[in-house]
Amino acid sequence: MKHIRMLALLFATLGVTAAHAQFAKPEDAVKYRKSSLFVMSQHFGRIGAMAQGKVAFNATLAQENADTVAMLAKVPWAAFGEGTDMVPETKAKAAIWEQPAKFKEAADKLQKETENLRVAAKTGNLDALKKAFSATAGSCKACHDQFKDK
Amino acid sequence: MKHIRMLALLFATLGVTAAHAQFAKPEDAVKYRKSSLFVMSQHFGRIGAMAQGKVAFNATLAQENADTVAMLAKVPWAAFGEGTDMVPETKAKAAIWEQPAKFKEAADKLQKETENLRVAAKTGNLDALKKAFSATAGSCKACHDQFKDK
Repeated sequence: MKHIRMLALLFATLGVTAAHAQFAKPEDAVKYRKSSLFVMSQHFGRIGAMAQGKVAFNATLAQENADTVAMLAKVPWAAFGEGTDMVPETKAKAAIWEQPAKFKEAADKLQKETENLRVAAKTGNLDALKKAFSATAGSCKACHDQFKDK
Repeated sequence: MKHIRMLALLFATLGVTAAHAQFAKPEDAVKYRKSSLFVMSQHFGRIGAMAQGKVAFNATLAQENADTVAMLAKVPWAAFGEGTDMVPETKAKAAIWEQPAKFKEAADKLQKETENLRVAAKTGNLDALKKAFSATAGSCKACHDQFKDK
């Protein structure tokens, strides 16, 4: 496992696959992915509160929140570059770099589900929103179970 | 000053002006505004690198980044609710709550400038992008100078 990480870091250093090249340093990449996922989770939670009847359903707010969620669901992935698993603050599991195809599949699924959520919110139909919320929440959980430390 | 803060907190507790009502706790509001501003700054920095000739100009990437910046420029303000000045992690100055009209003006200005940036990026013209980048950067700095501790 350590060898894979070292190799990945070497590749990153050589610029062979420098997925975090957009970030000044690996710490920024980790802060970026955590920040974007946190902001997304807050907006997603507001939709959840409506879906679960904790706050009154407001179609306009649901749509605004779903737009933000769908936009933010696209951005964290570029920040899981090689070498960023070494940053102490991360809860990212090594599985992300060991099974990149599986991780990409999970990231793609979230983007698909959040796009469905956006479309559902646009209909103004609460039942459609509930269904899409539930599917999206499932994809969050599945990815966390596989790729995020508790 | 402390009285104003206590009063604001009291109002917030009473639900009179609970701008952070969307957040479970004031700490979440602070984390949210810092996170959204950090993600925004990263995307803004990528436009800056092009504007300053540090990386090659790519009109598509500039547009994507400007879209993200403009979207994120809208969201942090709701997280500057009363009571959130008490959270130790914040660098927000008391001036935010003492001069709310001035703070709102600065927040509105950023949203206007980032909207201009989005429009400029859409033209695909580097000179237009440079001009809008510079104006936006000015509004970041002016707001930080007034409302953010070093």
